[in-house]
Amino acid sequence: MSTRTFAGGLWSFGRVIDRYATDGYGPPIGTLRAIELAGLSGELTALDLNYPFDEGVTVNDVRKALADHGLTTTNITPVIYDRRFRSGSFSSADPATRQAALDLAHESVEVARDLDARYVKFWPGQDGYDYPFQVDYATLRRHAIEGIRDVARNFPEVTFAIEYKLKEPRNRLFWSTAATSLLAIESMGVDNVGLVVDFGHSLFAKENPAEALLLTHSMGRLVDIELDDNYREWDDDLTVGAVHLVETLEFLYTVRQLDWPHPLKLDLFPYREDPGEAVRESVATIRALENKAARIPLDRLREAQAAHDAMTAQRLVRAALLD
Amino acid sequence: MSTRTFAGGLWSFGRVIDRYATDGYGPPIGTLRAIELAGLSGELTALDLNYPFDEGVTVNDVRKALADHGLTTTNITPVIYDRRFRSGSFSSADPATRQAALDLAHESVEVARDLDARYVKFWPGQDGYDYPFQVDYATLRRHAIEGIRDVARNFPEVTFAIEYKLKEPRNRLFWSTAATSLLAIESMGVDNVGLVVDFGHSLFAKENPAEALLLTHSMGRLVDIELDDNYREWDDDLTVGAVHLVETLEFLYTVRQLDWPHPLKLDLFPYREDPGEAVRESVATIRALENKAARIPLDRLREAQAAHDAMTAQRLVRAALLD
Amino acid sequence: MSTRTFAGGLWSFGRVIDRYATDGYGPPIGTLRAIELAGLSGELTALDLNYPFDEGVTVNDVRKALADHGLTTTNITPVIYDRRFRSGSFSSADPATRQAALDLAHESVEVARDLDARYVKFWPGQDGYDYPFQVDYATLRRHAIEGIRDVARNFPEVTFAIEYKLKEPRNRLFWSTAATSLLAIESMGVDNVGLVVDFGHSLFAKENPAEALLLTHSMGRLVDIELDDNYREWDDDLTVGAVHLVETLEFLYTVRQLDWPHPLKLDLFPYREDPGEAVRESVATIRALENKAARIPLDRLREAQAAHDAMTAQRLVRAALLD
Amino acid sequence: MSTRTFAGGLWSFGRVIDRYATDGYGPPIGTLRAIELAGLSGELTALDLNYPFDEGVTVNDVRKALADHGLTTTNITPVIYDRRFRSGSFSSADPATRQAALDLAHESVEVARDLDARYVKFWPGQDGYDYPFQVDYATLRRHAIEGIRDVARNFPEVTFAIEYKLKEPRNRLFWSTAATSLLAIESMGVDNVGLVVDFGHSLFAKENPAEALLLTHSMGRLVDIELDDNYREWDDDLTVGAVHLVETLEFLYTVRQLDWPHPLKLDLFPYREDPGEAVRESVATIRALENKAARIPLDRLREAQAAHDAMTAQRLVRAALLD
Repeated sequence: MSTRTFAGGLWSFGRVIDRYATDGYGPPIGTLRAIELAGLSGELTALDLNYPFDEGVTVNDVRKALADHGLTTTNITPVIYDRRFRSGSFSSADPATRQAALDLAHESVEVARDLDARYVKFWPGQDGYDYPFQVDYATLRRHAIEGIRDVARNFPEVTFAIEYKLKEPRNRLFWSTAATSLLAIESMGVDNVGLVVDFGHSLFAKENPAEALLLTHSMGRLVDIELDDNYREWDDDLTVGAVHLVETLEFLYTVRQLDWPHPLKLDLFPYREDPGEAVRESVATIRALENKAARIPLDRLREAQAAHDAMTAQRLVRAALLD
Repeated sequence: MSTRTFAGGLWSFGRVIDRYATDGYGPPIGTLRAIELAGLSGELTALDLNYPFDEGVTVNDVRKALADHGLTTTNITPVIYDRRFRSGSFSSADPATRQAALDLAHESVEVARDLDARYVKFWPGQDGYDYPFQVDYATLRRHAIEGIRDVARNFPEVTFAIEYKLKEPRNRLFWSTAATSLLAIESMGVDNVGLVVDFGHSLFAKENPAEALLLTHSMGRLVDIELDDNYREWDDDLTVGAVHLVETLEFLYTVRQLDWPHPLKLDLFPYREDPGEAVRESVATIRALENKAARIPLDRLREAQAAHDAMTAQRLVRAALLD
Repeated sequence: MSTRTFAGGLWSFGRVIDRYATDGYGPPIGTLRAIELAGLSGELTALDLNYPFDEGVTVNDVRKALADHGLTTTNITPVIYDRRFRSGSFSSADPATRQAALDLAHESVEVARDLDARYVKFWPGQDGYDYPFQVDYATLRRHAIEGIRDVARNFPEVTFAIEYKLKEPRNRLFWSTAATSLLAIESMGVDNVGLVVDFGHSLFAKENPAEALLLTHSMGRLVDIELDDNYREWDDDLTVGAVHLVETLEFLYTVRQLDWPHPLKLDLFPYREDPGEAVRESVATIRALENKAARIPLDRLREAQAAHDAMTAQRLVRAALLD
Repeated sequence: MSTRTFAGGLWSFGRVIDRYATDGYGPPIGTLRAIELAGLSGELTALDLNYPFDEGVTVNDVRKALADHGLTTTNITPVIYDRRFRSGSFSSADPATRQAALDLAHESVEVARDLDARYVKFWPGQDGYDYPFQVDYATLRRHAIEGIRDVARNFPEVTFAIEYKLKEPRNRLFWSTAATSLLAIESMGVDNVGLVVDFGHSLFAKENPAEALLLTHSMGRLVDIELDDNYREWDDDLTVGAVHLVETLEFLYTVRQLDWPHPLKLDLFPYREDPGEAVRESVATIRALENKAARIPLDRLREAQAAHDAMTAQRLVRAALLD
């Protein structure tokens, strides 16, 4: 896997904050400095960029910073989850907010073009609800689908991807699982909307990440892949393989079967760690696991799988992983 | 809701057994005695019948027993999850087992006709896997879908329903969530296959049951509804409302919006309780909650929901439920 | 329960922020304004106050603001979980940070005295770890226990309470469950340290909150009680009874058995809701449930419980709650 | 770790049954045949034996069968969780059932002596409750503690161990977590009762297994160690390391620090797998992981842990595990 490259989320290099450490886990870090830090990690070739950038930072500034650090743009991710969109973006109860989401999406398409990004990503983390009886589910669904469908129709030559997640910050998100999202996308009648499958999101959505990845790919809707880890109940965004090494191996084995041509993206939140270290540790783990995956004897594994023979499959995988 | 009627699963009245109390939680109870006990509960008008019946018990015996106790048949549920199918039914690795599942399905259609059942239910509880790398997900999916599609095509005038469940007895089941199942059903190209939405299954699949119910109905795939309760991690099959009263209320409120014309079915496993008591307690709770649901002021709730106004929705629901 | 009073956390009235809406779910709100908002909620008689206050706000300012709004102080909660303590307070790897935690604790004792607070609360939300192999558990345990023990010994006439929580913001916290915390407190050899049992924390720690409350009380370690709700996997801090009404009823029934003499405290994070509304909705629900709890026939329930008779207990509770 | 030996639970070699495959996952297998199969696995030196044995099988028969297959007895586990004890053993509401548990415990002590077992294990899997309001928690606690305390006092020279578990078959068990159990044991005032720490039980109790192991050991209460794996919500009893390889490594690393002198016990339920294969696969994984654990540079890891330095710890562990 010598040709494997990696992308990162710009957020991994910025200041992390949460509801307790409201003064942040470190000092503020601007867009351009975060790009520089991403470059300095030494392992990334491309970035997932939140948009808007910091006030006063232009697309040209970003392009230059990326070039300076040998980075390209995988995608633009419009920030449809900050205060303005705290109660939803495309599915907000407020038409003006829905329009603001559309406007920001359109703007993001322009930025994506300017930066040669492969796609525009929507992570509708505020599109959902928190309480029983809070919303009419049919209306929520309609708004959530129509908003993204409209953007997709406006830019038929642009690729869009939705990153699904079961919860957080809302207790329940509309774009919750691979299957829920695929079902909704199918109803759009467009062919330029797909999914980002995030290993960690899949894990705490109680999916098997490898199976979700394959399902998405088999429907022609796989746009990007993100890696991280957690304890199966929340989006802890730990370094890759920190906890679920076997399922990460199976995920990477599946990536290998798909001949995935793009960089693998890391989705990390190093609250208390150096982001460069977190990236390097994740990349080293992925590289090691991809080497292990390459050692699994395919014919024998397929034979075992054809028989649903768990013990033989375990033995083959263990030998590749631990011997 | 004076016209509301209730159905039950025959299993609730039989002997429960598990991996620890391998001598059962009570003495063996035959098919006909279980029907009698169901009738004696005093609250059921119809039953979900596992098939095959006990050895020596004929369809005529069952018909007579049902009639004797004023019961009809909601559906036949072929036992595609016992020892013979321990590694899968329609998706077994073994072609002979897949054929056995088809054969039993066909037989069940005949029994369903004989007993005037509304539908045939598949609960493919052994169709899945337990270990990472154990199966090829594409093959599993193909088998799982093709088996039921073939049955459905053979009997285009019969209604079939799949009861999805995230896990148990397999650690991971193919028919895991509403969305996963709907996506698979849509790919069948048949219109006589739908879903049974079980409140408890939905809960521990990390769905919101009311939302899953509505999604299934909106796609024209809602065949039946089952109620029970649990602690969100496992299919505990407690009496209705024992733990999640608010979400049960929202579920029943949704049932009411749908003008659901069929009996509500109970899916209980009273390991240590008298099944008649468990049924009566569940029915009393449902009746009370349906009365509460009828007290929610629809216009004001819809107005609150249109604004995603959680606090007003909470207030209206609390007033209806607790005042 | 006409004499029941309620306390609140000051944080419920401040600006909530998280890792996505880094610009906050609303505008900044200062200490004194938050106190005013707490008073305006109309339902609180006392507050849990984070310390330090905003820069420039003195204890006298706070005392006056409280008095102006008819509020007293239940307790002071030193902020041992912000950036300075991001990797732990009493159990930090850094001796200077451990000392800073001690210093802040001592300062908080003075503030608590000045404001006539009943106790000082430690919520060591950063005291734990995130990754396997990250810490030596024995050392972590020793530091966590020694720090609070030392404070308690320095102020033998002051009451201290630890609010346990399974996780967040660390993936794993040392003070994780009631039993873990009681075991650690017992090893301190002091009698002025106890626990705050938070209903929601208990729920997602997979405890039964009523049982945890009783256990803590039976060991003479119950210092305070907090209420809220969540979906059993995370500290969602929803309004009381929003999801788990039955377990909240059992919790309040237990509070009643204990003749709890203090205000019940609300621990809410109304990200997108008006905090006053969230408080009033929670109080109204508690009041309604306390009335329901008073209707449960004690003798008959105790008789059922003596027989472990779940169905009779369910019937009695349902009658009290829903009839 | 060439001297490492392994024990197994006899149940792993018997017929597994559950509430769906009520005809079992295979044919019935008697006590003596199960012992034979355990021996034939080729990896076990000792067994955890459920008692009573099959009807007609004497202690002498068992002793002979063990000897024939080169096996010894780690412990006797009285079956206090079958139909007779379906609503509890030591904590049953029924005094006669509590007495029956005591009687069986006493009988088990005799059998343990006859078979030179190191200890008697209680797994009170029916001692708990299922519904809110079902039991009085103080009474349940008193009975649960007194029963085992009485047995321990009657046989002060015998070692007893409790295997804690959060749930199953009861929805909530009294002996739920390490800390809960240690707290209860401390209150007994005896020194011959300790715990069995089961990796899988610890995992779905939301503990960190290595931390729970160390806590138990540090209090002088660690009697035995069991290994298996699951998906963090249920006692799936998968082969060791099948899912949670990193935490299993940390657990075995901790075992190594303790210089644990006894065989490591496997607690597997190979529903659909050959038990011999499941044992061999588990043992091979443990051996591989113990070799990896031995490669971790202790000084450098301890230094990283002293600084709570997650990234360095990750790097050291990854190097040992995957390089």
